[in-house]
Amino acid sequence: MPIKISQLFDSGAIDVVQATDPRQIDLKLRKDSSADIHQWFHFRLQGARGQACTIRFLNAGQATYPKGFEGYQVAASYDTENWFRVPTSFDGQVMTVNHTPELDSIYYAYFEPYTWERHLRLLGEVAENPIARVHDIGTTVDGRDMNLVVVGNPKAEKKIWVIARQHPGETMAEWFVEGMMDALLDNSNPVSRKLLQRAVFYIVPNMNPDGSVRGNLRTNAAGANLNREWMTPSPERSPEVLCVKNKIHETGVDMFFDIHGDEALPYNFVAGSEMLEDFTPERLAAQNAFIERYMAASPDFQNVYGYAASKYNEELLTLASKYIGHTFKCLSLTLEMPFKDNANLPDPYVGWNGARSAALGAAMLQPILQSLDD
Amino acid sequence: MPIKISQLFDSGAIDVVQATDPRQIDLKLRKDSSADIHQWFHFRLQGARGQACTIRFLNAGQATYPKGFEGYQVAASYDTENWFRVPTSFDGQVMTVNHTPELDSIYYAYFEPYTWERHLRLLGEVAENPIARVHDIGTTVDGRDMNLVVVGNPKAEKKIWVIARQHPGETMAEWFVEGMMDALLDNSNPVSRKLLQRAVFYIVPNMNPDGSVRGNLRTNAAGANLNREWMTPSPERSPEVLCVKNKIHETGVDMFFDIHGDEALPYNFVAGSEMLEDFTPERLAAQNAFIERYMAASPDFQNVYGYAASKYNEELLTLASKYIGHTFKCLSLTLEMPFKDNANLPDPYVGWNGARSAALGAAMLQPILQSLDD
Amino acid sequence: MPIKISQLFDSGAIDVVQATDPRQIDLKLRKDSSADIHQWFHFRLQGARGQACTIRFLNAGQATYPKGFEGYQVAASYDTENWFRVPTSFDGQVMTVNHTPELDSIYYAYFEPYTWERHLRLLGEVAENPIARVHDIGTTVDGRDMNLVVVGNPKAEKKIWVIARQHPGETMAEWFVEGMMDALLDNSNPVSRKLLQRAVFYIVPNMNPDGSVRGNLRTNAAGANLNREWMTPSPERSPEVLCVKNKIHETGVDMFFDIHGDEALPYNFVAGSEMLEDFTPERLAAQNAFIERYMAASPDFQNVYGYAASKYNEELLTLASKYIGHTFKCLSLTLEMPFKDNANLPDPYVGWNGARSAALGAAMLQPILQSLDD
Amino acid sequence: MPIKISQLFDSGAIDVVQATDPRQIDLKLRKDSSADIHQWFHFRLQGARGQACTIRFLNAGQATYPKGFEGYQVAASYDTENWFRVPTSFDGQVMTVNHTPELDSIYYAYFEPYTWERHLRLLGEVAENPIARVHDIGTTVDGRDMNLVVVGNPKAEKKIWVIARQHPGETMAEWFVEGMMDALLDNSNPVSRKLLQRAVFYIVPNMNPDGSVRGNLRTNAAGANLNREWMTPSPERSPEVLCVKNKIHETGVDMFFDIHGDEALPYNFVAGSEMLEDFTPERLAAQNAFIERYMAASPDFQNVYGYAASKYNEELLTLASKYIGHTFKCLSLTLEMPFKDNANLPDPYVGWNGARSAALGAAMLQPILQSLDD
Ligand SMILES: [Ca+2]
Ligand SMILES: [Ca+2]
Ligand SMILES: [Ca+2]
Ligand SMILES: [Ca+2]
Repeated sequence: MPIKISQLFDSGAIDVVQATDPRQIDLKLRKDSSADIHQWFHFRLQGARGQACTIRFLNAGQATYPKGFEGYQVAASYDTENWFRVPTSFDGQVMTVNHTPELDSIYYAYFEPYTWERHLRLLGEVAENPIARVHDIGTTVDGRDMNLVVVGNPKAEKKIWVIARQHPGETMAEWFVEGMMDALLDNSNPVSRKLLQRAVFYIVPNMNPDGSVRGNLRTNAAGANLNREWMTPSPERSPEVLCVKNKIHETGVDMFFDIHGDEALPYNFVAGSEMLEDFTPERLAAQNAFIERYMAASPDFQNVYGYAASKYNEELLTLASKYIGHTFKCLSLTLEMPFKDNANLPDPYVGWNGARSAALGAAMLQPILQSLDD
Repeated sequence: MPIKISQLFDSGAIDVVQATDPRQIDLKLRKDSSADIHQWFHFRLQGARGQACTIRFLNAGQATYPKGFEGYQVAASYDTENWFRVPTSFDGQVMTVNHTPELDSIYYAYFEPYTWERHLRLLGEVAENPIARVHDIGTTVDGRDMNLVVVGNPKAEKKIWVIARQHPGETMAEWFVEGMMDALLDNSNPVSRKLLQRAVFYIVPNMNPDGSVRGNLRTNAAGANLNREWMTPSPERSPEVLCVKNKIHETGVDMFFDIHGDEALPYNFVAGSEMLEDFTPERLAAQNAFIERYMAASPDFQNVYGYAASKYNEELLTLASKYIGHTFKCLSLTLEMPFKDNANLPDPYVGWNGARSAALGAAMLQPILQSLDD
Repeated sequence: MPIKISQLFDSGAIDVVQATDPRQIDLKLRKDSSADIHQWFHFRLQGARGQACTIRFLNAGQATYPKGFEGYQVAASYDTENWFRVPTSFDGQVMTVNHTPELDSIYYAYFEPYTWERHLRLLGEVAENPIARVHDIGTTVDGRDMNLVVVGNPKAEKKIWVIARQHPGETMAEWFVEGMMDALLDNSNPVSRKLLQRAVFYIVPNMNPDGSVRGNLRTNAAGANLNREWMTPSPERSPEVLCVKNKIHETGVDMFFDIHGDEALPYNFVAGSEMLEDFTPERLAAQNAFIERYMAASPDFQNVYGYAASKYNEELLTLASKYIGHTFKCLSLTLEMPFKDNANLPDPYVGWNGARSAALGAAMLQPILQSLDD
Repeated sequence: MPIKISQLFDSGAIDVVQATDPRQIDLKLRKDSSADIHQWFHFRLQGARGQACTIRFLNAGQATYPKGFEGYQVAASYDTENWFRVPTSFDGQVMTVNHTPELDSIYYAYFEPYTWERHLRLLGEVAENPIARVHDIGTTVDGRDMNLVVVGNPKAEKKIWVIARQHPGETMAEWFVEGMMDALLDNSNPVSRKLLQRAVFYIVPNMNPDGSVRGNLRTNAAGANLNREWMTPSPERSPEVLCVKNKIHETGVDMFFDIHGDEALPYNFVAGSEMLEDFTPERLAAQNAFIERYMAASPDFQNVYGYAASKYNEELLTLASKYIGHTFKCLSLTLEMPFKDNANLPDPYVGWNGARSAALGAAMLQPILQSLDD
């Protein structure tokens, strides 16, 4: 039986150079649908059961984040449900997987995928909970629904906004939100019950549905990086941001979290708003307090490694969390999870994955509660 | 909040004429992607919670099977998992649904959908069972994988072939196959254990992946009705049939079942091969015995209502079950399930649905076992 | 760590002769609580992880059914949920198990147990189904509840009675009933839906609660073999039979099934009422038809092996199925499942077990439906 | 159908004065099997479906903790799995439930029970995890197994001991331990993963198996209050304490938690060791830090309400946590959960229950991790 590589399913993405001999499968990272970004991949390999495969990603060195492949292990699954990591190396140019599939069919991906169908199923389950609502707030470039989940009483004193997956290939962001919403809707969770006495959550589980389905890493169907569109979102180029931004202005916001994945750094961390011009010592204290509290809630979270503090410039306000922090003077954070693993608490078998992202999402409710009056 | 109708998900299909006032939502059945077939629909309605909606399908009278809407009730779901029927009427021209959604978001469909993602998940689960294999046997027009599930020992004496969903909108066919495969892989099922001592099953759960995802009723991405392609399938127009036909010729076949749904008749039944020129009394007896045994195994199956016996003509051999019956002189049946309900045993709440189709699929193992030596 | 054998839990039963050296664990079958019956055992072994154990049942040759240990394999479980068989031999006097437990704690039993807690949980689930009722009809010698499950409309034309586990160590009987009730309450099961249009089921899942909890094979807390009490049940000695017998006389009965396990025969079969004096050819035909239909429904059922036809005598009417057959002139059968395995379709890993008993119970609905008008 | 009250199942306990008319069901709290303690009850009521029942506990005023019935609501369940609270009043003498059961059979209990069978099932599941072991460490007065669960590497630097249910009617204690163990064995939980790098957990899920099955509130089969036996446990009177105490002396201990329920106080809290003679300021600081950290981890935990600090006396060392704190100079706490509800975060539908106890148990891992170096 010959081997075969295919990709026509949710978030499938790869270019095949040659795939005849399992010992020399040569692939190329495909670019985002309308932008010159190369990083995400997701494909199925069939017919290689029991054969020692060598899978090479020839243009890994030209990827958007080549550092993302240093110390990185490819994710794999036989059943689309259980994902594990496979031996991977990177010489600065070519990334190579050496793996012997145990079954006829196996999937390989940059990270454990989160499909559009799972997204719709999640919304359906959430909507059946009496304390939650699912609202339509707009339509993507391709025509998909932009949904907003509201948990709690909209008249509550504090408005917490959480948005995820502006960069669609950062699927850990939607796993994070699923974990957070599960915890929020758990009647036995005292943090959630306490929170919902005073706060309402506005949650956008997927900011970039088109890019998600298309298998893009960073852009929507129009080629826009949504996290550079917050100053002047347009109906043509970034309707996904436009509708969410409008809704935030309508409801107001007391805390804002934009959930992401980082290709290079093997840690969980946040990027704050300290570079904003009118950032006060009080806000810095609140931001630092939140970070300390999050570290207490989850040993998977840390503040040693992260982004170097960027200098303020006008362009910075095109980013969601800077825009919100600037406009609403509230706690506003970009949260980053690794594509690789948390180097402080590594799990070589699964790496960082969906379940751990969900646990980190659930854990964030604790610092939110503790920071409610900051 | 305004109402909204959307359809950009697996098998989504509808044309919106107007959808502003929930009391007058006017829609049109959309045609298959490359063929003049109007029947399948699947869409999401948002923003109508608690409002008495009147949804009209203006061109139902011009559908491919207008009789399919007589006595038919539309299927609906809040969560994409649990489906029920809603009050529906048809005046010969317009089909009208009167329904008050209880939640913000609701899906309506011609029949309980079976998604491509569920298909891939099913293959993944099956492949993890040591007595099953999942093989790639070809590629669709759009580029999706044609997968063949093999359950049992390929060297077994009897080869049983089951194919489903040549007509992609007949989703009950894949539910049927899922139920049959679950039973076949159940260690506690004595029918399956007995069968697998002597027989191997070759199963194609989805003959028409492209049409399934596109939301077609009857055709593939090239506009072909696959069940008219069995004499001369081509790589361009019907690669889905070509690869399966080739494989059947390679393995041989002792019983063949082609699983379908029927738009008009509210019954489960089979169409046989009695019109074939060389059909012998022995084969007729075997066919009738199979039907009797199936009725004994499932009261949802019957032989009173069905298709009038067609006269033989050359063109008939373009149909899968006739082609196989003619070529291999074996039991070869087209099985039809209702889109409506089984009028002999109706369940007004769910109508005919996925779970009942699965039960009918599981039940078919019994007559197969009993007919093994016919 | 020393090894230890214990038995103080539901149906625990064993006498320890010596249990110091895992290579020589000597046990004796304990007698029923108030009767001279030796056969059932159920105990826990701790501390033998990774050690090759030799477990001897010294008095197996003096058991009530020594033939029960010929060709028999002991059942074992690490978690009380998943049971498998372990290598067992019998020399006519001593039964010996050679097994190396993989974990610190393991249970061994004569057959996969069915606990009183599971019984109560089953009743709780059933009661929540709108088409079922759970009635109290009496109290055992020890003071446990005798519960009757009624499925369907009590005014239905046909009354089907199913009682199980008169002999409490025959736990397969309650697994059988659980499987049958699950099928009966499954909305997607056409056999059940058809049946419930015309029939009501009266089911006693456990006729002998005290013996079950006490770990008896055949008797209740008063030492009575309930299947010899049907002529003259008494409140002191057999209140379990008395209340059920009264209820049957109150409702009437059209078909009666008494579910059992047989120690010696490695087959599923029924014992009928053909020895009754007024048994007519019509009833014999009906009985034989039922048997044929059951064989069609389940290859685990057969009619080659079974009990030799007993001659009629007065004492025979002390047996449930004979008493009912004699009194109500209806189809009345004792159904027997093996403690060993079905030799026609063996599964060396699990032997005959709970899941297979449940499947046989579910399958019985088909011959019941087909025999409704006999 | 007459009504009936029964109690012959795990932890069943009640005395019936009269139970003929559902409008006047008169009961008495039964005493512990060998001690003059009246408080726990658990019984089944049948035959009262749809009838407004008045259930009076005539001797509630003479209970061991009559204050336990002030502001208390009785727990109820139809299926032994889902428990809710029913309207209950207490006039200082008689406690009265007014409730109309919706189904034929209903259970009422002092608190959501945790059965011996669930205990054994839990041990079975835990044992199948490669990082856990289940050891036998002794035998109760009646002959049940005393099991110790060890999670993590016994050579780890820190030894954490958690024991539960010395008072068997305080079933929340075992729910707590189940939740804590589930979290500890969850691969996605970073607190657990971090903890197990440095600590090993020794857990006794049930210190008093005999009292649990017998339906006692506070004592074992010999009538001993195990939490007064830690100075001089004896094989005859308190073998349960003896074996655990010996094991603790064998392994050493760095933190000790004894899990309880409190009848009167509607709060979660701990009682510490500050009255011990050699209690240092450092230990007090550590104890207070632990409490603060636990409050941060769970809003269901608090330190405002609790027991007044007791004065030290010799007898105090008969209590587990005092004995351990005195002997090992480590953090040693008695944790108390309410039978009623947490008045700071009440849930009138379920009150304090199994799921919330489990959540509190899972949450305790966080302060343990944070206090590891105190
Ligand atoms: Ca990002
Ligand atoms: Ca068709
Ligand atoms: Ca028997
Ligand atoms: Ca206590």
